[in-house]
Amino acid sequence: MKLTQEQIDELIHEGRRIMHPDDTEYEGYQTDQELKRPQPPLVKEPMRETSIPLPLDFKDLDIDNDFLHVINSRQSHRVYTQEKMTLLELSYLLWCSQGVKEIRGKSYATLRTVPGGGARHPFEVYMAIQNVEGLDDGFYHYLPMKHHIEFLKEKEDLRAFISDSLEGQLWAAKANVVFYYSYVCRRAEWRYGIYAHRMNMADAGHVTENVYLACTSIGLGGCAVGAVNGPLCDRELGLDGEEEFIFYAMPVGTVSVQDKDKEKDFYRFVEEEGL
Amino acid sequence: MKLTQEQIDELIHEGRRIMHPDDTEYEGYQTDQELKRPQPPLVKEPMRETSIPLPLDFKDLDIDNDFLHVINSRQSHRVYTQEKMTLLELSYLLWCSQGVKEIRGKSYATLRTVPGGGARHPFEVYMAIQNVEGLDDGFYHYLPMKHHIEFLKEKEDLRAFISDSLEGQLWAAKANVVFYYSYVCRRAEWRYGIYAHRMNMADAGHVTENVYLACTSIGLGGCAVGAVNGPLCDRELGLDGEEEFIFYAMPVGTVSVQDKDKEKDFYRFVEEEGL
Repeated sequence: MKLTQEQIDELIHEGRRIMHPDDTEYEGYQTDQELKRPQPPLVKEPMRETSIPLPLDFKDLDIDNDFLHVINSRQSHRVYTQEKMTLLELSYLLWCSQGVKEIRGKSYATLRTVPGGGARHPFEVYMAIQNVEGLDDGFYHYLPMKHHIEFLKEKEDLRAFISDSLEGQLWAAKANVVFYYSYVCRRAEWRYGIYAHRMNMADAGHVTENVYLACTSIGLGGCAVGAVNGPLCDRELGLDGEEEFIFYAMPVGTVSVQDKDKEKDFYRFVEEEGL
Repeated sequence: MKLTQEQIDELIHEGRRIMHPDDTEYEGYQTDQELKRPQPPLVKEPMRETSIPLPLDFKDLDIDNDFLHVINSRQSHRVYTQEKMTLLELSYLLWCSQGVKEIRGKSYATLRTVPGGGARHPFEVYMAIQNVEGLDDGFYHYLPMKHHIEFLKEKEDLRAFISDSLEGQLWAAKANVVFYYSYVCRRAEWRYGIYAHRMNMADAGHVTENVYLACTSIGLGGCAVGAVNGPLCDRELGLDGEEEFIFYAMPVGTVSVQDKDKEKDFYRFVEEEGL
């Protein structure tokens, strides 16, 4: 379907409405929480019978403890050296971006290392993993309540899947781990109903920003990606695509300062086009 | 207008489409960048003739340089002690969340202390300020290229405005600064067109997460707020509400560990309702 200019303008207008919705006409609307309907579970049930505990003793990591230096040196990394990542490093990234610090109430909310609107934390983390110490390559799922991961399955051509899942971005295939974030709709909609979704995208940004900073603090690199082939990921991971679906991803890998020029290649068009 | 269940279901469905849009039908669509149309400016022009340079010598701040401790101790703060905030602290928050580190190309992109899709950084930062050392109370605008702020105007009842602008949230009126984030549509749409908006909400989350962490690292506190009365803010700040509009905010203030129980009051309903 080729879009007319009028259709493009209409889609732009609709897009802007994501950023500032016109909510005033729905006064009187009540969410499931306001209607005292039962709350959905705080996290997804384990998908397998066994899981792998993640180490939590982060003092063995060489963390950059100059906070401002971490902030200032964060950058997107798309060139990975394909050295082994340690399980402790993976554990640290998961902890810093989705770790559960506390439960509020009987089972009202998880308080995590990232902020989330109404502490709903409506995301699940799946991973395509290759070349992480002690782990078979394949797909995994994070269990935040226990800080475990569970092995879901192998994948014959994991690298091809990774690129395909990110709309053909080949660089990502060399990442040690690709975090795929799913959205579990009812977990947020219970509290925020029809208003949930806009701010949940901001919540997703909180998560990936902590991945960026945690990476930077231990010498890894990554790049958040919005161009995700959700249906492909959903099929692969067995998600229904309606109540839970993949919507955002972040490849992370080992990096080297020697690849600085290779990183610049991703922006060669800027010079070529005189921008 | 009272919504029927069918309308609610339709709005929920539309909301979920924010998270995972169905883009496939628009193949062949080209953005302004792809069509080689001229790029909009990287930042908004100054709105006043004079501006106030912000100090950049952050070594005078008492920064928590235990990175993991900062991650672990971040929390939402809605109780402020109304002590004076220093100009250096304000400068640090702005630097950590929107500071420009470098220009890519002639004027292709700003590289900032936060990641942003395609390095578009389509946000402007306005502030309602009260009780910051050396500054008159009132509205300000951040000039990221110079790391200055410019004084826009006084406001007779700034506290009432703050609460009104955040849909009646009274706690925010005691913040030393409320960051109001605007979206400058064309800056992102030039590159991403009809696909810009979803990921720009994630970009906004990157920004506020850095505010959270920067606050935590120097003993301040804040809480990002999605419930913003955009039209009210736009009118007050002279934004047209179409090409640029306020969509997100974050009050920040001085905090004290002694107010821990007062913070808990915001969640008293959890116990009361047995959640």
